[in-house]
Amino acid sequence: MSPVAFHLLGTDGAARLGRLETAHGTVETPAFMPVGTAGTVKAMMPESVTATGAQIVLGNTYHLMLRPGAERVARLGGLHRFMNWPGPILTDSGGFQVMSLSKLRKLDEQGVTFQSHLDGSSHLLTPERSMEVQRQLDADITMSFDECTPFPASEDQAAQSMQLSMRWAQRSRDAFVARPGYGLFGIVQGGVYPELRRHSVEALLAIGFDGYAVGGLAVGEGQDEMFRILDATVPWLPADRPRYLMGVGKPADIVGAVLRGIDMFDCVLPTRSGRTGQAFTSRGTVNIRNARHQDDGRPLEEGCGCPACRNYSRAYLHHLAKAEEVLGLMLLTWHNLHYYQDLMRGLRGAIGEGRLARYAADFAALQDCGDLDPL
Amino acid sequence: MSPVAFHLLGTDGAARLGRLETAHGTVETPAFMPVGTAGTVKAMMPESVTATGAQIVLGNTYHLMLRPGAERVARLGGLHRFMNWPGPILTDSGGFQVMSLSKLRKLDEQGVTFQSHLDGSSHLLTPERSMEVQRQLDADITMSFDECTPFPASEDQAAQSMQLSMRWAQRSRDAFVARPGYGLFGIVQGGVYPELRRHSVEALLAIGFDGYAVGGLAVGEGQDEMFRILDATVPWLPADRPRYLMGVGKPADIVGAVLRGIDMFDCVLPTRSGRTGQAFTSRGTVNIRNARHQDDGRPLEEGCGCPACRNYSRAYLHHLAKAEEVLGLMLLTWHNLHYYQDLMRGLRGAIGEGRLARYAADFAALQDCGDLDPL
Repeated sequence: MSPVAFHLLGTDGAARLGRLETAHGTVETPAFMPVGTAGTVKAMMPESVTATGAQIVLGNTYHLMLRPGAERVARLGGLHRFMNWPGPILTDSGGFQVMSLSKLRKLDEQGVTFQSHLDGSSHLLTPERSMEVQRQLDADITMSFDECTPFPASEDQAAQSMQLSMRWAQRSRDAFVARPGYGLFGIVQGGVYPELRRHSVEALLAIGFDGYAVGGLAVGEGQDEMFRILDATVPWLPADRPRYLMGVGKPADIVGAVLRGIDMFDCVLPTRSGRTGQAFTSRGTVNIRNARHQDDGRPLEEGCGCPACRNYSRAYLHHLAKAEEVLGLMLLTWHNLHYYQDLMRGLRGAIGEGRLARYAADFAALQDCGDLDPL
Repeated sequence: MSPVAFHLLGTDGAARLGRLETAHGTVETPAFMPVGTAGTVKAMMPESVTATGAQIVLGNTYHLMLRPGAERVARLGGLHRFMNWPGPILTDSGGFQVMSLSKLRKLDEQGVTFQSHLDGSSHLLTPERSMEVQRQLDADITMSFDECTPFPASEDQAAQSMQLSMRWAQRSRDAFVARPGYGLFGIVQGGVYPELRRHSVEALLAIGFDGYAVGGLAVGEGQDEMFRILDATVPWLPADRPRYLMGVGKPADIVGAVLRGIDMFDCVLPTRSGRTGQAFTSRGTVNIRNARHQDDGRPLEEGCGCPACRNYSRAYLHHLAKAEEVLGLMLLTWHNLHYYQDLMRGLRGAIGEGRLARYAADFAALQDCGDLDPL
């Protein structure tokens, strides 16, 4: 078995149906990866994550290296065993979160020196250390270490940041220890500047990766701008490697990105929203805390196969949210992850049958039907 | 089908093996009832509660009448349907919690006027209203409305309080609407005074109930005193009715009370402790937040069949607790409820085979083995 293998099974326009094979199992694409920041998809048992249809989860290098520590996870048998998730795991590089969460950062050519947001302890994250940590965690898919270009950034700033990330991408590739079924993805940067994005793709292709991620989006630029950058980036990516849009996104973002040829996604939105009483449905978002649900005996979404919809009324979910009961977080998180996986199943089915344009149009029409709560 | 039926299947000394039949199913006794205060056993899916072996849960009248409201629960099909618990439910009368949680209480012969701890709204709870609320909730077992005698209380105070509760017991009986499979339990009061307890039993027997609870214990009097009161009370209770010790307790309290002829228990300890990192094991209590667990690859308890012990290390549970992850609450709550149900299974098996004294001695010896964390 070579590195993670990607099989392109079909296309519908720019959209792709695929299969990713890793050391810990297979992932059908387009795929949504629930985020398991600190070694747990928040408020979910791993078997429940599996029940939603998720085949791969994401772990955060920054969080896990600080607590419980990557060396400790390695001693305990790796992240799969530690968190009881036997399937594939992708870990990010830590680059994004060290900039958004840590304190007293100093970034130079070598890497980033920072203080833990947990206890103030000092740490150095470099491409080499990021590769080491992700190997200790036993990630099936390792992300190369990059700087997430701030937004907004001038073209000059974006260029300098991207070029640093490309040098770090080479060092990540050099430090990554190849193992059968394990892969390393490069990350395209370049801000909102198509030329920079194209240069970034060329630099990554010259190094060679098992997959290609588009980074630095969903950071405030808006959906139109994000789609514009995808239109200017994705066509340069090789067809025989998976494409991962990092940190995206809302359901409509995902549909639009799949239409543009993206294969993989991750986002905290379904889990985080589940903990604040926001639910995703085919007719838009619902705020279950809204008083209009308090006597509503209907499920959150008719026909949804998740436990929240099969076994409970909106009135009950409203009650749990108002009473701040843990079960409310559990059920809404489950529903939202189920909704996202239903969406991915729908997208895969539509691509396979060559009816994605119709699927996307129906999706958009229903989402706007408008009798629901604003997110 | 008459009211809840109790079948005494066997005895071992004063201890009893029994079976309680209700409108929503059967309960093997001695039984422990997980507390589902606000229409949910905190941090548990109902199917997980069932998986621990629990056959009946408790709901709190005080909480449910204030939020979401008993009329609302009735409109939505009753508490079983509302919370997706198809099995038997016992509700308390609200008497205990109105005194411990509400504000600006005024207690007189009629009942208790109080302000909600949630929104300050004014309410009146009487024996008649308590019966109505518990019927709206559709409780299989309704508790008569009583005043939980404060502790400490002089003999005169305890007598007056008990006599008020006995008058309220009669009013509860009069207001209770008998239905097949539904029952009403009376509550013995009388503080720490054996003569008062006996008078209370006599008063309740004169009225006639489907089961008898011992109330007003586990309020600070200590285990020795609690056992002394049980020794002075339980022998007067009729053999053909279930006996319920309210709000108890620690595992050792339960073993001692079963030895004295108690059939039913409820307590927030396993669920509340699970949310603060405390776990019950056969060798005593464990504080999973203790740093000694951080590299411990062993389960919380070897041989335990709960998911926390089957699938996770102490190191992982420690990590979840330190990171304040919801999954930590979920897994420890599940383990603790599983532990309590294992204890009840063990007690029932021992009574059935006439070896309860040996079982209790082995239990006590192991609990004291001493290398564990203080609760």
